[in-house]
Amino acid sequence: MYTLEQLEKEAIALIEQESFLNEPSTLYDPIEYGMKQGGKRIRPLLTLIAADMFSSDVNKAKSAAIAVEILHNFTLLHDDIMDQSPLRRGKETVYKKFNSNKAILSGDTMFALAFKHLLNYENEIVKDLVEILTQSSIEVCEGQAFDMEFETRNDVKIEEYIKMIRLKTGVLLSCALRLGATTAHCTKENLSLLDEFAQNIGIAFQIQDDILDCWSDLEVFGKITGKDIVDNKKTFLYLKALEIGSERQQNILKELYSSKNFESTQKEQVVKSIYEELKIKELAQKEMQYYHNLALESLDKIKIDNERKENLRLFAEKLMKRNK
Amino acid sequence: MYTLEQLEKEAIALIEQESFLNEPSTLYDPIEYGMKQGGKRIRPLLTLIAADMFSSDVNKAKSAAIAVEILHNFTLLHDDIMDQSPLRRGKETVYKKFNSNKAILSGDTMFALAFKHLLNYENEIVKDLVEILTQSSIEVCEGQAFDMEFETRNDVKIEEYIKMIRLKTGVLLSCALRLGATTAHCTKENLSLLDEFAQNIGIAFQIQDDILDCWSDLEVFGKITGKDIVDNKKTFLYLKALEIGSERQQNILKELYSSKNFESTQKEQVVKSIYEELKIKELAQKEMQYYHNLALESLDKIKIDNERKENLRLFAEKLMKRNK
Repeated sequence: MYTLEQLEKEAIALIEQESFLNEPSTLYDPIEYGMKQGGKRIRPLLTLIAADMFSSDVNKAKSAAIAVEILHNFTLLHDDIMDQSPLRRGKETVYKKFNSNKAILSGDTMFALAFKHLLNYENEIVKDLVEILTQSSIEVCEGQAFDMEFETRNDVKIEEYIKMIRLKTGVLLSCALRLGATTAHCTKENLSLLDEFAQNIGIAFQIQDDILDCWSDLEVFGKITGKDIVDNKKTFLYLKALEIGSERQQNILKELYSSKNFESTQKEQVVKSIYEELKIKELAQKEMQYYHNLALESLDKIKIDNERKENLRLFAEKLMKRNK
Repeated sequence: MYTLEQLEKEAIALIEQESFLNEPSTLYDPIEYGMKQGGKRIRPLLTLIAADMFSSDVNKAKSAAIAVEILHNFTLLHDDIMDQSPLRRGKETVYKKFNSNKAILSGDTMFALAFKHLLNYENEIVKDLVEILTQSSIEVCEGQAFDMEFETRNDVKIEEYIKMIRLKTGVLLSCALRLGATTAHCTKENLSLLDEFAQNIGIAFQIQDDILDCWSDLEVFGKITGKDIVDNKKTFLYLKALEIGSERQQNILKELYSSKNFESTQKEQVVKSIYEELKIKELAQKEMQYYHNLALESLDKIKIDNERKENLRLFAEKLMKRNK
């Protein structure tokens, strides 16, 4: 088995070393640009961790790891058009640098390229791998559709929010793990436990993102905090405050979220003061911990030697302790 | 074996009977709308024809036929955004009726749904089917990229144009045929001949489209003719005229194609008069016939009884005789 640190390095190197350049350059240059924006490469890392858990041959999982990272970046290309996000990791997004049409078409090509990498496997497992990638893609799209729908709805329930972030974030983490485990011929039962683990870790990860956006240290976080409030994003924090707040607090929140024209600093202050009155940060941390624990319970149930689970346990722990 | 007419009816019914509705409706309603806009269903028809050629079980090809039609319609959803086309078959395009974001996301979902339909097959052929769909999707995207690139280039060669229409049109026809033939366990050699047939028929089909857009009868064609000229589209006709025209004719064509501000009727008249001076229609028909003959040669070489090829021969003939 490898150490987590070794696998982290491997996941990063794997994508850096892969060239996405081809003809026509108008199609492939945006792909290369999008794929080489750095990042922690969490998804290919999960694929490698899972393969390492269930077999002695991590190399075999590499094509699957590349596939899931391409799929993830394809969703970023299209999401950035839909959300009109100009920057990602401090650099121009693909659609801003090239144009929307190119970002649409290059994204489509990436979707196909993800499947292409799964064709490097033997007949016996290709169907399982394609099934995982296909179903995950569909669910990620459903998650994005719910997310867009929530922007115009004023009656979003926390339950619906959890479902949405499970689809948008948890499903792709699960996809990454299950692809890796499938290359290592993992049992159906263990696959299902990996799925539970990943979906719950994904939810915990996203709630933590909501907390970090609201309260983290600008210097450490590297992004402007309070952006979710300015953008009227219906995060866990907002929905929880609406659920447990007094009528007065609810009305203030609804009023402030009804327009993008309020002065940002003051709006942020008022919303945060309501969050503090209601101890929303503590409630969100409790919720995050709840899903984190659920994930660990599933991990415990996986039928392999305990020490083989250590990397995934460590990964989950690091993810929960992050401050950016 | 079935008659061509029976298979034509079957292909149309297959798509009409399939429901694409699901939750969230914001994601699936645009898919249902896009899939139910009618049309001749040429691609699923080809899948059924191929399956019928090589086996006695056309039903087995149905999932593959649905997959290729979903893939085709996914490309239409995204192409219509890129080309800003408001209408398709006389109805609002998906992005006009819903919006661009929904058309992007629903298109992405369709791409995944196409793969999902291939999972209805047994392990032994899933890899081959996925490989055909994947490689075809990549090439169709490449074709669309070349098409967009040509809009801003003034030095497009006929050879490049042929390559582009082969990728944009021929490849998907080939995909349709090869999926159907693969469900019927056709040999690699015959698959390769089907590929040649389809790619050449696709090129002939597209050149004919260029001819129809320029000279067909408005009442029969159902679309406004001369649109390619008004839109400065670098069709086979235009590129051929540039290739063989005098310096004076070349300069007029380039001048008229340098802007979208010329008065349409007069522009169309001048361009068409140059086409007539150079006998471009006849040359295009000759070229179309050349690719049609190449296609038939490949069909002849396929190693099955001659009468089993009759439907595909008839299909090619009907396609070439169409006036809309």
